[in-house]
Amino acid sequence: MDLKTFLQRSNIHLDLAVEAHALLRGDADVEVDGVAMNQEDFSDGTITVITIKDAMAEKTMGRPIGTYITFELPELRDADLLREYQVTTTELAKKLKKVIDPKKDNTFLVVGLGNWHATPDALGPRVVEKTLVTRHLFKFIPEEVDGKMCNVAAITPGVLGLTGIETADMLRGLVEHVKPDCLIAIDALAAGSLSRIGTTIQIADTGINPGSGIGNHRRGLNEETLGCKVVAIGVPTVVNAAVIAHQTLEAILKEFESEPALAAIYSPDHEESLMGIVDNVLHPFRGSLMVTPKEVDELIEKSALIIAGALNICLHPDINKDNYESTLY
Amino acid sequence: MDLKTFLQRSNIHLDLAVEAHALLRGDADVEVDGVAMNQEDFSDGTITVITIKDAMAEKTMGRPIGTYITFELPELRDADLLREYQVTTTELAKKLKKVIDPKKDNTFLVVGLGNWHATPDALGPRVVEKTLVTRHLFKFIPEEVDGKMCNVAAITPGVLGLTGIETADMLRGLVEHVKPDCLIAIDALAAGSLSRIGTTIQIADTGINPGSGIGNHRRGLNEETLGCKVVAIGVPTVVNAAVIAHQTLEAILKEFESEPALAAIYSPDHEESLMGIVDNVLHPFRGSLMVTPKEVDELIEKSALIIAGALNICLHPDINKDNYESTLY
Amino acid sequence: MDLKTFLQRSNIHLDLAVEAHALLRGDADVEVDGVAMNQEDFSDGTITVITIKDAMAEKTMGRPIGTYITFELPELRDADLLREYQVTTTELAKKLKKVIDPKKDNTFLVVGLGNWHATPDALGPRVVEKTLVTRHLFKFIPEEVDGKMCNVAAITPGVLGLTGIETADMLRGLVEHVKPDCLIAIDALAAGSLSRIGTTIQIADTGINPGSGIGNHRRGLNEETLGCKVVAIGVPTVVNAAVIAHQTLEAILKEFESEPALAAIYSPDHEESLMGIVDNVLHPFRGSLMVTPKEVDELIEKSALIIAGALNICLHPDINKDNYESTLY
Amino acid sequence: MDLKTFLQRSNIHLDLAVEAHALLRGDADVEVDGVAMNQEDFSDGTITVITIKDAMAEKTMGRPIGTYITFELPELRDADLLREYQVTTTELAKKLKKVIDPKKDNTFLVVGLGNWHATPDALGPRVVEKTLVTRHLFKFIPEEVDGKMCNVAAITPGVLGLTGIETADMLRGLVEHVKPDCLIAIDALAAGSLSRIGTTIQIADTGINPGSGIGNHRRGLNEETLGCKVVAIGVPTVVNAAVIAHQTLEAILKEFESEPALAAIYSPDHEESLMGIVDNVLHPFRGSLMVTPKEVDELIEKSALIIAGALNICLHPDINKDNYESTLY
Repeated sequence: MDLKTFLQRSNIHLDLAVEAHALLRGDADVEVDGVAMNQEDFSDGTITVITIKDAMAEKTMGRPIGTYITFELPELRDADLLREYQVTTTELAKKLKKVIDPKKDNTFLVVGLGNWHATPDALGPRVVEKTLVTRHLFKFIPEEVDGKMCNVAAITPGVLGLTGIETADMLRGLVEHVKPDCLIAIDALAAGSLSRIGTTIQIADTGINPGSGIGNHRRGLNEETLGCKVVAIGVPTVVNAAVIAHQTLEAILKEFESEPALAAIYSPDHEESLMGIVDNVLHPFRGSLMVTPKEVDELIEKSALIIAGALNICLHPDINKDNYESTLY
Repeated sequence: MDLKTFLQRSNIHLDLAVEAHALLRGDADVEVDGVAMNQEDFSDGTITVITIKDAMAEKTMGRPIGTYITFELPELRDADLLREYQVTTTELAKKLKKVIDPKKDNTFLVVGLGNWHATPDALGPRVVEKTLVTRHLFKFIPEEVDGKMCNVAAITPGVLGLTGIETADMLRGLVEHVKPDCLIAIDALAAGSLSRIGTTIQIADTGINPGSGIGNHRRGLNEETLGCKVVAIGVPTVVNAAVIAHQTLEAILKEFESEPALAAIYSPDHEESLMGIVDNVLHPFRGSLMVTPKEVDELIEKSALIIAGALNICLHPDINKDNYESTLY
Repeated sequence: MDLKTFLQRSNIHLDLAVEAHALLRGDADVEVDGVAMNQEDFSDGTITVITIKDAMAEKTMGRPIGTYITFELPELRDADLLREYQVTTTELAKKLKKVIDPKKDNTFLVVGLGNWHATPDALGPRVVEKTLVTRHLFKFIPEEVDGKMCNVAAITPGVLGLTGIETADMLRGLVEHVKPDCLIAIDALAAGSLSRIGTTIQIADTGINPGSGIGNHRRGLNEETLGCKVVAIGVPTVVNAAVIAHQTLEAILKEFESEPALAAIYSPDHEESLMGIVDNVLHPFRGSLMVTPKEVDELIEKSALIIAGALNICLHPDINKDNYESTLY
Repeated sequence: MDLKTFLQRSNIHLDLAVEAHALLRGDADVEVDGVAMNQEDFSDGTITVITIKDAMAEKTMGRPIGTYITFELPELRDADLLREYQVTTTELAKKLKKVIDPKKDNTFLVVGLGNWHATPDALGPRVVEKTLVTRHLFKFIPEEVDGKMCNVAAITPGVLGLTGIETADMLRGLVEHVKPDCLIAIDALAAGSLSRIGTTIQIADTGINPGSGIGNHRRGLNEETLGCKVVAIGVPTVVNAAVIAHQTLEAILKEFESEPALAAIYSPDHEESLMGIVDNVLHPFRGSLMVTPKEVDELIEKSALIIAGALNICLHPDINKDNYESTLY
């Protein structure tokens, strides 16, 4: 049973388009119909742009037609006394500008999804805390912001368990009132590999869609449900524990692949048993079990700084690579 | 210049109806047309019900037709190792029941106004944190809540400076979606006397109305602006510094009233100078200066517990004076 | 390779004495020399007392001579609208009384270990927040506390990464000054099984000792290093991810034990390969990877309430099962 | 009754040496024996250095022999979208270097005094949060810090009401262990004038001494009590409400000084009455009443950034005006 089959049977969604794409291409690295991929390197890592082009590709990729930009930043995880992320921040700002295409008189609503009280889920609120909010200034001191800043509002809607209200329901009325040209949703993601944690940033021009990520507590946030363009920015902070269990199974197979008895175990006949094994190991929590490094709070902090910095540069005409740092304190 | 004139000229609004009423009655304790007042004592203090009955009284009292219930709890301020507020909590629950009139199948939206980051303004968020939220349970485990709990959602909308969005605007869309039978807004208030801080709780069935309180950052939250019944619960946590300055002026007058020269100072001829004096003393902050005791965090915590406990008893059929404590941990 | 061997080779310490004991007894349930075990049931679960009696048992059990009391509370994990933990709290208070043996004029120092900023590690700070601190009252209002309360001080020393100071070093000077009759350290633990998370409380009269638990950032906190009796209270909030990987390996073996080729894999010859597999799966985080349920914040909150309630009952003469709830708000 | 007399009789201590000095000099601007004062202007404001040179001056000034450096930054209070405090930060770093005189192999302990839970008192904890802590790195990765960083530890000891332990007692043992060359204590101060709030930073090479400031909950933190050099850095965040009341009294006098009856009121004969007036106005809180602007959280945030930035530049050889910003995120 390969990872693709396992994820399907376990009802586990991979939040990163690059991971879903890699799974489909498999070891043979076949092309996926209707999906284009471009990669470019820069000093801090690699930027991969995946474009899902048609309804067919939408189905195979398990996510809507649109563009998914992934920053892979292998050095980001390692601590750094003097944190300098200027290059990544400005590159991210550039890509965000292409996706969001901000105009001087645009209005934006930045939404920090997730739960303040659970560290791996706190990325969204952290980014909002560092986002430069200006919407009220256009009313009170328009002469100081006009032309220099865009109109930016920001909220952290909280989670269903604390508010009793679905995020989509909370945002719908707000969007009707604020009428943003674009809503930007920030969220922690679940990856299919530990090496992704704290080293990857994904931008999706399709918003956030059902089946995704760390929580099952929200419905889709996209142009269809909210009535405005939605851009999602996410960082993997956890891996589903079932994925770790499966990777262990896979690794044994690979190590002992000369043993025919073992290879047989992975035949479709045994799928049921293998699913049961993983299920038993993860009992009594199953789907809600997450694997995360102890230092996840630091990883989230670093990612939040880069995303907020890039957003502030992207959205506000007068903020650029030379002065954005002062918006992040 | 008496306090009434001073407050008018300084554009300072008293949040407590009992204070506005007392000002109008003056030392002579005259009746105010169109306003009824009833007082009852209970073991922990006094409950005063003020009813504004007509449009004329609305004008003189500076607040809408409706009922204003004030709990005065003189003992509450003093610290208590084993905090036992059961009597006040259950009395408050009783009055809330009369005002809110909850039915088993009702829906409520509890809104914690104010700013987490500024202690005297954090009452609303603290109450929301301790409110029993059940709205999502009616979807996921209806059999466990049906008939036992009411449908309660809760949010802390944040403040204009952090979100860029007026509270009324944020709530309007939410009310349309949640369709609460009643919205309950919790807010920190500004009093006209220091003795009110942390010893007074006010319930108003008229919601929150312009000109009120500690912040000028919100517009009215009431049936007219939100489209549903709004009950406001508030606790004074600050006194405007200008009031303290005025009280000092008044006290001198009283102390030295035998001095004709001094009495003359308070004649209308000098109003301008006196206003200027207070203004100069409070420069450069003026209207935003608040007087608050150092232990305000403890006072807020106590009030938040009483209000949340009373709300949980009031709203949920299965919560009563014997089991409400477990909802407050 | 069995779990015992795996843990040893992986340098993973089990924080729970009951787990270490069960491992040693194995499937055959053999007696462990020098270790006594007693179990009693009560309405909410089981209490197991393990006594390590001699130097030999100290070595086999990997922890000092002393008493380890474990509460197993299988129902605790499941959410509860009206949280009522009175029975468990009072039973825990009784056992703490036996271990701590508080006298009316005793002084205690409660220490909340762990990191506020990382949810699974925040148990200690949460308990301290709800502990009734009285030490200063003996100076300022002795008449109100004398005979009714014990003298209790409490701190959350923070973690090495934020302070730069080892916890033991921070506590040493404080113990010299406060001179507690007993220091009570609260800490989040790492378990060897997911079913332990949020359902188990361990009391150890031996303090906290090297090799233990979720963090490697502290040295031992015990009578030898601190100069006063140290009682540790802990709750498992995570399982080391390597344990999950190993359990998956084990489960395959069990499922397919009729396959001789598979059984061979677990022979000592392959230990190196199997260690390598787990290591590769958990790369690049290895030892720091923790598995924890998404709802860990709620589990911690429940455990913190029970522990703080039991501590307040145990330490203070005037606090008992009828009034302890008011200390937990 | 002038302010000096009033403060003495009211037992109110002015935390700022510049204010104490100005009071002594009076309107006539007389020299104070044994006190030297130097002022220099820079682009963001004025730096005043007051030196108390002998035991006599110590008595008149009400604070120990030593140097008190005050930054007056009139523009700091006003909000700024793109906060740029580089000039003030580097000037403050320069002055701190003179006072602290850091050597490459020195050890420092930064102590954030005050209460997280009460906004006007939270300056110390905020600065500590942004201070670059390196002490543990000298043990784990010495090659990365040696020569580039100083050895810095940092703690927020909490307040007496929450810990039960006096700050001085908590620090004493820690100083014995960490053996810092200098302890740097950060604290919120009480000013004698509202214009000081959020616009003034004071450095004192004498530590923190009894009678000072917003809290009475601590004893002196100085070389005598702690056994190491202590430098205090403080920012006024409140004014005692009694001072506001007195200033109102004074202002009336000034406004109507042509009235002989009024002038008479201020004669020593009436001191008792005037003290009583202020006392009555501030009843029931008296000494604990503080006046603070609503936006105090923002003022504290700005000051905390400047102080933490200056400390990081001052203490660490490799941090300078070009890269310190990245330490403040």
